[in-house]
Amino acid sequence: MENERLKKQLEFLLTLDKLKNVYRQTYILCDDLPQGSAAFEENFKERKPLPRRENDAEHSFSLAIAAAVLAEYSNEPVDITKVMKMVLVHDAVEIYAGDTYCYDDEGAKTKEAREKAAAEKVFGTLPEEQAEEYRALWDEFERNDTAEAKFSNAMDRIQPLLLNFSREGISWKEHGVHSEQVRKRFDKVKCGSDKLGKYVDELLDKAIDNGFLLH
Amino acid sequence: MENERLKKQLEFLLTLDKLKNVYRQTYILCDDLPQGSAAFEENFKERKPLPRRENDAEHSFSLAIAAAVLAEYSNEPVDITKVMKMVLVHDAVEIYAGDTYCYDDEGAKTKEAREKAAAEKVFGTLPEEQAEEYRALWDEFERNDTAEAKFSNAMDRIQPLLLNFSREGISWKEHGVHSEQVRKRFDKVKCGSDKLGKYVDELLDKAIDNGFLLH
Repeated sequence: MENERLKKQLEFLLTLDKLKNVYRQTYILCDDLPQGSAAFEENFKERKPLPRRENDAEHSFSLAIAAAVLAEYSNEPVDITKVMKMVLVHDAVEIYAGDTYCYDDEGAKTKEAREKAAAEKVFGTLPEEQAEEYRALWDEFERNDTAEAKFSNAMDRIQPLLLNFSREGISWKEHGVHSEQVRKRFDKVKCGSDKLGKYVDELLDKAIDNGFLLH
Repeated sequence: MENERLKKQLEFLLTLDKLKNVYRQTYILCDDLPQGSAAFEENFKERKPLPRRENDAEHSFSLAIAAAVLAEYSNEPVDITKVMKMVLVHDAVEIYAGDTYCYDDEGAKTKEAREKAAAEKVFGTLPEEQAEEYRALWDEFERNDTAEAKFSNAMDRIQPLLLNFSREGISWKEHGVHSEQVRKRFDKVKCGSDKLGKYVDELLDKAIDNGFLLH
């Protein structure tokens, strides 16, 4: 009776809802808490905000709108629809594979295998040709070898940097991260956008000067 | 020294971060809580999940990927880039105007004026031509008079419905909403997509049969 194709598509969309519970190391900018939540009540009593981490759905939202607004800075012309689709699903595998913090060398060893298995599972819920399309977008993002992938990866690097800088380096301090590790990681911004790469360099200098990041 | 244009664009993007703290009436699908949060610790002790509401950034993320995956169901051909941009910013005004629950008749009276002022403020941070572009997308979404706006509005209706149905009508029950109010609201789905509108009708019948929604 019901449309099998539509059911598969909706199953995929409901699966992606789980990204709302995959939390990252980055903190969101503003710490208000949902009114009525236990954390809200607790903090309200003590009149203090509780830093809240960002989840993958929020992060992906930020990348999609950042890509749209900053497209002009891409080193090469990009198909912006493809970029937006790519960033929206780039973390979909974390529903099953979890978020691996970018300076976690142990986790990095098993990351690829875990994520490939997860990609089969999450994109496999879509109708065949869409499963192929979105799986290919995810693979392309990981390979980082096209204009769209490079710009998407640049967005994926610069967005948490902006948040972390605005939060005075809270995530860097928690993990004792050094500027050398961070600079290396931010090479990917230059790869997608020289102009944004230059901006990031200046921002990291400022982060060190201000004591947000260890030299 | 620094690029004034880029600074404005980044200011806009950081402003949109506040959507991560505008909470809606809809509950997300899965209730795990961020490890280490006060709510998590509290619930962990009592071994119970706490329903968490969805915020505007998460909602906008869901609409953007839903639009990409379900584009084929639009009644009219749509420019999908435009649709994705539109849904990503459709709730941006709520940063300043707050979320007005769709069955709150009192709030609805002042909604338009509050939201227009907020639109000036939020889109006004962008460089001029981008401010115009995104403000126009927001206006178009509100007027609901183009193929893209109709499809975007259809997404905006169907996404919370899917979540709420999956959560056995939790938001409807909280607010004592009746099927007549809901059916009227869901006319906008048909307006963007007959096929999805038909699916929604069947889902609402099922919601009533299952006692998720008052007849």
